[in-house]
Amino acid sequence: MAMESVANSVQLPPLDNPNERSAVGAELQVVLQDLIDLSLIGKQLHWSVVGAAAHSVHLFLDELVGEWRELADVVAERAVTLGFVPDGQSSAVAAGSRVEAVEVQSLADHAVVWELGRRVAAVAERIRERLGSIGAADLVTQDVLIKVVGMLEKHQWLLRVQLGQKA
Amino acid sequence: MAMESVANSVQLPPLDNPNERSAVGAELQVVLQDLIDLSLIGKQLHWSVVGAAAHSVHLFLDELVGEWRELADVVAERAVTLGFVPDGQSSAVAAGSRVEAVEVQSLADHAVVWELGRRVAAVAERIRERLGSIGAADLVTQDVLIKVVGMLEKHQWLLRVQLGQKA
Amino acid sequence: MAMESVANSVQLPPLDNPNERSAVGAELQVVLQDLIDLSLIGKQLHWSVVGAAAHSVHLFLDELVGEWRELADVVAERAVTLGFVPDGQSSAVAAGSRVEAVEVQSLADHAVVWELGRRVAAVAERIRERLGSIGAADLVTQDVLIKVVGMLEKHQWLLRVQLGQKA
Amino acid sequence: MAMESVANSVQLPPLDNPNERSAVGAELQVVLQDLIDLSLIGKQLHWSVVGAAAHSVHLFLDELVGEWRELADVVAERAVTLGFVPDGQSSAVAAGSRVEAVEVQSLADHAVVWELGRRVAAVAERIRERLGSIGAADLVTQDVLIKVVGMLEKHQWLLRVQLGQKA
Amino acid sequence: MAMESVANSVQLPPLDNPNERSAVGAELQVVLQDLIDLSLIGKQLHWSVVGAAAHSVHLFLDELVGEWRELADVVAERAVTLGFVPDGQSSAVAAGSRVEAVEVQSLADHAVVWELGRRVAAVAERIRERLGSIGAADLVTQDVLIKVVGMLEKHQWLLRVQLGQKA
Amino acid sequence: MAMESVANSVQLPPLDNPNERSAVGAELQVVLQDLIDLSLIGKQLHWSVVGAAAHSVHLFLDELVGEWRELADVVAERAVTLGFVPDGQSSAVAAGSRVEAVEVQSLADHAVVWELGRRVAAVAERIRERLGSIGAADLVTQDVLIKVVGMLEKHQWLLRVQLGQKA
Amino acid sequence: MAMESVANSVQLPPLDNPNERSAVGAELQVVLQDLIDLSLIGKQLHWSVVGAAAHSVHLFLDELVGEWRELADVVAERAVTLGFVPDGQSSAVAAGSRVEAVEVQSLADHAVVWELGRRVAAVAERIRERLGSIGAADLVTQDVLIKVVGMLEKHQWLLRVQLGQKA
Amino acid sequence: MAMESVANSVQLPPLDNPNERSAVGAELQVVLQDLIDLSLIGKQLHWSVVGAAAHSVHLFLDELVGEWRELADVVAERAVTLGFVPDGQSSAVAAGSRVEAVEVQSLADHAVVWELGRRVAAVAERIRERLGSIGAADLVTQDVLIKVVGMLEKHQWLLRVQLGQKA
Amino acid sequence: MAMESVANSVQLPPLDNPNERSAVGAELQVVLQDLIDLSLIGKQLHWSVVGAAAHSVHLFLDELVGEWRELADVVAERAVTLGFVPDGQSSAVAAGSRVEAVEVQSLADHAVVWELGRRVAAVAERIRERLGSIGAADLVTQDVLIKVVGMLEKHQWLLRVQLGQKA
Amino acid sequence: MAMESVANSVQLPPLDNPNERSAVGAELQVVLQDLIDLSLIGKQLHWSVVGAAAHSVHLFLDELVGEWRELADVVAERAVTLGFVPDGQSSAVAAGSRVEAVEVQSLADHAVVWELGRRVAAVAERIRERLGSIGAADLVTQDVLIKVVGMLEKHQWLLRVQLGQKA
Amino acid sequence: MAMESVANSVQLPPLDNPNERSAVGAELQVVLQDLIDLSLIGKQLHWSVVGAAAHSVHLFLDELVGEWRELADVVAERAVTLGFVPDGQSSAVAAGSRVEAVEVQSLADHAVVWELGRRVAAVAERIRERLGSIGAADLVTQDVLIKVVGMLEKHQWLLRVQLGQKA
Amino acid sequence: MAMESVANSVQLPPLDNPNERSAVGAELQVVLQDLIDLSLIGKQLHWSVVGAAAHSVHLFLDELVGEWRELADVVAERAVTLGFVPDGQSSAVAAGSRVEAVEVQSLADHAVVWELGRRVAAVAERIRERLGSIGAADLVTQDVLIKVVGMLEKHQWLLRVQLGQKA
Repeated sequence: MAMESVANSVQLPPLDNPNERSAVGAELQVVLQDLIDLSLIGKQLHWSVVGAAAHSVHLFLDELVGEWRELADVVAERAVTLGFVPDGQSSAVAAGSRVEAVEVQSLADHAVVWELGRRVAAVAERIRERLGSIGAADLVTQDVLIKVVGMLEKHQWLLRVQLGQKA
Repeated sequence: MAMESVANSVQLPPLDNPNERSAVGAELQVVLQDLIDLSLIGKQLHWSVVGAAAHSVHLFLDELVGEWRELADVVAERAVTLGFVPDGQSSAVAAGSRVEAVEVQSLADHAVVWELGRRVAAVAERIRERLGSIGAADLVTQDVLIKVVGMLEKHQWLLRVQLGQKA
Repeated sequence: MAMESVANSVQLPPLDNPNERSAVGAELQVVLQDLIDLSLIGKQLHWSVVGAAAHSVHLFLDELVGEWRELADVVAERAVTLGFVPDGQSSAVAAGSRVEAVEVQSLADHAVVWELGRRVAAVAERIRERLGSIGAADLVTQDVLIKVVGMLEKHQWLLRVQLGQKA
Repeated sequence: MAMESVANSVQLPPLDNPNERSAVGAELQVVLQDLIDLSLIGKQLHWSVVGAAAHSVHLFLDELVGEWRELADVVAERAVTLGFVPDGQSSAVAAGSRVEAVEVQSLADHAVVWELGRRVAAVAERIRERLGSIGAADLVTQDVLIKVVGMLEKHQWLLRVQLGQKA
Repeated sequence: MAMESVANSVQLPPLDNPNERSAVGAELQVVLQDLIDLSLIGKQLHWSVVGAAAHSVHLFLDELVGEWRELADVVAERAVTLGFVPDGQSSAVAAGSRVEAVEVQSLADHAVVWELGRRVAAVAERIRERLGSIGAADLVTQDVLIKVVGMLEKHQWLLRVQLGQKA
Repeated sequence: MAMESVANSVQLPPLDNPNERSAVGAELQVVLQDLIDLSLIGKQLHWSVVGAAAHSVHLFLDELVGEWRELADVVAERAVTLGFVPDGQSSAVAAGSRVEAVEVQSLADHAVVWELGRRVAAVAERIRERLGSIGAADLVTQDVLIKVVGMLEKHQWLLRVQLGQKA
Repeated sequence: MAMESVANSVQLPPLDNPNERSAVGAELQVVLQDLIDLSLIGKQLHWSVVGAAAHSVHLFLDELVGEWRELADVVAERAVTLGFVPDGQSSAVAAGSRVEAVEVQSLADHAVVWELGRRVAAVAERIRERLGSIGAADLVTQDVLIKVVGMLEKHQWLLRVQLGQKA
Repeated sequence: MAMESVANSVQLPPLDNPNERSAVGAELQVVLQDLIDLSLIGKQLHWSVVGAAAHSVHLFLDELVGEWRELADVVAERAVTLGFVPDGQSSAVAAGSRVEAVEVQSLADHAVVWELGRRVAAVAERIRERLGSIGAADLVTQDVLIKVVGMLEKHQWLLRVQLGQKA
Repeated sequence: MAMESVANSVQLPPLDNPNERSAVGAELQVVLQDLIDLSLIGKQLHWSVVGAAAHSVHLFLDELVGEWRELADVVAERAVTLGFVPDGQSSAVAAGSRVEAVEVQSLADHAVVWELGRRVAAVAERIRERLGSIGAADLVTQDVLIKVVGMLEKHQWLLRVQLGQKA
Repeated sequence: MAMESVANSVQLPPLDNPNERSAVGAELQVVLQDLIDLSLIGKQLHWSVVGAAAHSVHLFLDELVGEWRELADVVAERAVTLGFVPDGQSSAVAAGSRVEAVEVQSLADHAVVWELGRRVAAVAERIRERLGSIGAADLVTQDVLIKVVGMLEKHQWLLRVQLGQKA
Repeated sequence: MAMESVANSVQLPPLDNPNERSAVGAELQVVLQDLIDLSLIGKQLHWSVVGAAAHSVHLFLDELVGEWRELADVVAERAVTLGFVPDGQSSAVAAGSRVEAVEVQSLADHAVVWELGRRVAAVAERIRERLGSIGAADLVTQDVLIKVVGMLEKHQWLLRVQLGQKA
Repeated sequence: MAMESVANSVQLPPLDNPNERSAVGAELQVVLQDLIDLSLIGKQLHWSVVGAAAHSVHLFLDELVGEWRELADVVAERAVTLGFVPDGQSSAVAAGSRVEAVEVQSLADHAVVWELGRRVAAVAERIRERLGSIGAADLVTQDVLIKVVGMLEKHQWLLRVQLGQKA
């Protein structure tokens, strides 16, 4: 075959079984939408936190948002690598994310930490439940999501220790 | 007044007239939601662009998204500085943004550039129309938005030159 | 005219009207003295803050002081650019600044934030009142001062949110 | 409209009124040619300065040239953003710039400072005279030119203080 | 045992079963030779690409080559860590690599992308097939190879989107 | 539930089964104490190595110590993320670590490499034995420990090659 | 003496009097063990701090630990420079350090600050008492320890201001 | 004693004798005020220097001011470490500093160097006279001030060589 | 001769023969004007390029312009080192450069690459023809120009591969 | 000629005589293959070196490999600049390189240095022999190869001094 | 006194007693010449070291030379600060330095370490003997020299450990 | 030949003819000694310069010294690469350098520039005279020395322009 005439040919997908690929892509879209929603809520709280610890929380939220944006990019790129285009636009995130919105007003620092902490925990738990079945379909995707869970759980710890006497 | 007993007192807002302040805050919220929506659509296109120029466009979109996130943060922080908490969460953006969603599928590079370019132009035009009245209320906010318009117009130029024979 | 013989000639000032220039220079000197005083008070509080949030406030004050020193330099250099040498020495600042001194003792973190926040707000308000008349005389100086007001108002927001339930 | 068929369509210009746009573009071209000419003259003097202060002046000129090149790029990109392609080539600069050439020979350090300083002042004054009418047409372009004037006036101050007993 | 007399003693290998170790080492040598070959072919194409997108592809290939060199080093060091010295010299790579050579001539940009993309996909697929059995022998090596597969699949995606209408 | 009243509530732990969590936490504490002990011994040898290769070994030990401190931090933070506070203080490390102390005297470079190499190998082997059961309880912790084993095995290789004719 | 035959000769110690050298070395070993213990306790608290200021304290502890590790290295290297090999391993630190262990559990932020602050103060006071006699034996070692005391006292100030109304 | 109930307890000061501590603090306050005054005068001269060497002096003054601000911070933090809150605000500096103000006008470069040089020398001499008695009270503070004197004397040398034929 | 009285004496030129020096200087002036003209045309095209590859070309042109400015500086400084002041101002460049101007309008990306590529090739060829005779006069200048030719030829290759099927 | 219709036209090669160009290209291909082979052998030895100096040699080999890869890129790009596409793939390198393979096993440090040193020397000598004839054809290529020889000879020195009593 | 007329006046020296100043300056000159000589010998050995450890020693010598050059500069600047111009030129160093030259030939690595180590020790001892009397004259100079001794003694330790079984 | 037994064998020198090599080495030693002497004199003047331009000259001298040290290292390493160990110690430099010493006293800035400038010119001229014969023996060494001459001539230009009306 001449090299010059191949530009519109089909490509090999990285996974052999289209059904599995589609299923893994759909799992990744759910994670993507949760991560984007976390990053938007994180910014929302970055702007609306008040109280004695407001400045520390304000700065810490920007670090979390930065890491969630990074994770969202990794997750979305894994999906398209598998041939699945996920939807990460505002309407899709608003419809598909399982993360609750926060109130639009000034929020006390401890409330910010509490509200964000339980959302982060919930997202981590939901991904963790799917690690096994995803691993059966694709070890690379599982490895990506193990990192996501590990980071979210660490974030949840960093948040929950700010709430009380016991970590 | 003893220094130690003032923690819960009222603060001086930076603008004297509460009505003006609230109006300026509402203007900024509209801009914020458009900018967040642009940044989400920019990421969506970053993941779904195909074609001979796909890799350049993929990289260029990340730069644009980075600048829109930065501008969104500046705009939101100006709003809260004025005492107005804007809503930048997914539902509010989905409801309030005037930027159209793009199709969720692989998109040819020139279509990506076209679709994004006209959305950027529309956002810039809408803010430009309000510069005069905002300047009458608050020169600092006007200065912020002049920068936003200037950057969006530059982005629109950088996009539109990729489309044809004439810039 | 031979090039070698001109070293002691007069120079063109950037503004045509000496009266205006002198007036703008005097406005800038007032701003300069307030900014230097803020930076000295910021350092004073950096050294004397105590309480649970003392370390965060200690670090945050150094960032504010750094920005006020930078703004002071920009303001003073604008004045000399206009041909007016402002006085930024300790006696002139002590005499001319409209910023109140703080007590020389250990100060609780929330009191530090409160005391500094209202001083920052007052400086910002005083400059804001003069933006219009300065703009009529010199748009470049107005642009410099719009930046100063924008930054001081942002600082005031970052301080006031640390004080209570409402931003 | 299908996304794939739009690549050669018209684009929205950022300003509604073509006449205004063209007028603003022509103003920017004049500034561009002056700035390019300043940068070429600055380099010429960088190579030909002699005298006790020659090395300091040699280094300082490189900083000025760097800033003028940066400003020229900003000005030219603002023009093309508005749909006007300015001419920044050597013949156009030689014909259109209002900056005088310097003599091609070794030049004493104080003469270098004097010659450059009055050229910088003249360029700044000419732009300053047009700020009002440009602002009426386009606030974004006005904001760009206010920065140009502010920087040129600062450069003129930094040069003129090297010439005599009085700044 | 005296500390000074041990320099020539045997060392503990990290895996207990020599047969398994040898088998895992042989698997890693195959991956190493493919990765080295990819990096040489990537450089070959870096030098011979032509066409409208040649410069972007030229730069992108250097990034890919850099990552393949890095992965090759990680893979080879894992092999020697297990006590197996793999052969990464030109003759061994020429003999053992399963990656086809490309023609030695100027190659059009889309052909470059196509030719490289299918080679990358083939290497990724071959490693993926062995992940399970390697994981049964050594989880650490499996973890290394999961990263290799994940990166190669991402590279294949970044290449294949440059080829057509559909990613 | 009102946002403000939740600060002292319980938090969701990241693992559902408290027994498993406690077991995993205890495993991590053992790893932590070994890693801290390795880092202290590494420093001890950094100070006491002599011989022709002493300076290289001195520098290399600091790199190893830096990596072990980093791994120890990751391991400890994984434990507290799981709700288990491990003990990393000197008495606990002295009591719980399974790493032998070295003699307190000048030690020849080859002896330093030998002594450290077998300690590193032993720690790696002990963690490797537990990877399977830990993976059954928590994939995230297993992933953390796979990295630890991989790095320690690489360190052991880098040490053992310095000892003799055969790697 | 031929240059090639000297490798195993004796070296000149930097201090003439062996008794003094040994005494100074023993002093440095005590300081070393205290500093290592502080660094291990600092890390322990880094992992176990809870409360509203937990995140700031968590970050601040890492800075302190970094400085204590650096100081420990300087102190140990001064000892070996003097010909004395100090013991910095876990058992020696557990036995020789005069710093009390902390409880292994979640600890409230203010308690963390209090507990660490008084340990730091105690270490600083003990070294300060010995400065005079050490200076009589070796001015270089005294200079090292003056820096250690200065840094520990600064750390103690940074900690104690977080505890109350008065610094 | 329970850990949780100690937050408002007294702290150990680093020096045992309160009288000495107060005396050393007062010495440090004098140095602080001189250093702040030098930094304000340095900035004043940075803005008002004219003459052939004006640009070099302008840049050099900024370096000196940066170092004096740094030294002032070190001196003030040593004072509060000792339990003494010094006053570094404009009125206190204006009243307490022994550094003369300079004229508020354009100043020739050599006059700037002369005026600043003799002020720096005077400050250095005054601190040098107190080194002995401060060393008797606190070696750490003495060490801080030896650095201050060393740096000021170096600055004085760098200034005085710019004045004449002999250094 | 007393050291102090020499300031206005003659200097030794680096080349002994004034005629050769002047000839080499004139050669360098020609190269300088071509390089300045290339850099101005490169910027012109940076602003006016349109088409699918416009953004890549836009960025690549800035790299080329940066390198041409650097080369121009090296060439001009070699000329003044030899005692010849070349003219690099706009009129001299417009008159002396042998590089053709480009049209002032939007230019398609492939036309930009073609137009620039043949101008770069022409400049390189003209310098190459003179390398031999310049080397006979001054090896240092020849070495400078060999670098210029090598870089321009590389640039020409990087441009021409973007134009067709064959490099 | 219209600008838009030229995209597929011929380009000017940088050398006028096609025969010379082809000959120089063939010379460069030989150098390229030797340099690639050196870089692969350097990596091979990086993985298989053992002995007391193994770690230093391991690190040093990576520096050499990095420089050889860089030189190979420069050499290959000079060839394609001249219009000659060299073959740098594994089969071509295996066939064309004149560098001997090393044994695939653990290799003692001194043997590694010896084996590599004589291969580097041989490559340098072979290029050196051709410098004269290449310089007659193309001074730019000669200049590139003088750098290659200079670096390889320096590497050979750095290797040979590790082997014995005499450099 | 008018500010403008003072340029040639006398300056205050930092030490009151000219005799002491001269004596301290002479002490510093001796140290300077030894440090310069060490740095030249360190470079000499950097070029002439051979043997298995030659490359490590070669690199380490450059670090030592860098630190000795830095110390020499500090020492010389302290002397001129005191009003004493020391002689650091080659003849003065050759005449005044008490450091022996090394043979000009290839030198074995262990001989290099031995020869340099005893020279470093000798320089350190000679300065140490003078610390007391210098401290009596000037505490700042003493502080400088305590640093010099501390660094040289550390260097001597780093060298001597490379020589044998005992540090 | 077995790989393990070669450590003490002879090495291939990079140049075939020992006589030529020795001659080139001797030429390089002369250059080395001049460059070391220039660097020592440059430092001497760095410490002793006085006058209005003293600070600029002081800083500029450090840049020159840094470049001369770098060139000296390149020259010495070229010599040892050729198998010739040059002598760069103080006695050899004092004896062999053809650069005159300067007076040991405060020196006026213009005298410093003059004295250094003519020494730099003399060194450059002496090397230039030998370029031809060295090139006949070794093109690599010639290339090194062309760079040395080029840099020294540039330095001479940068110095001589500080002296008068004509460059």
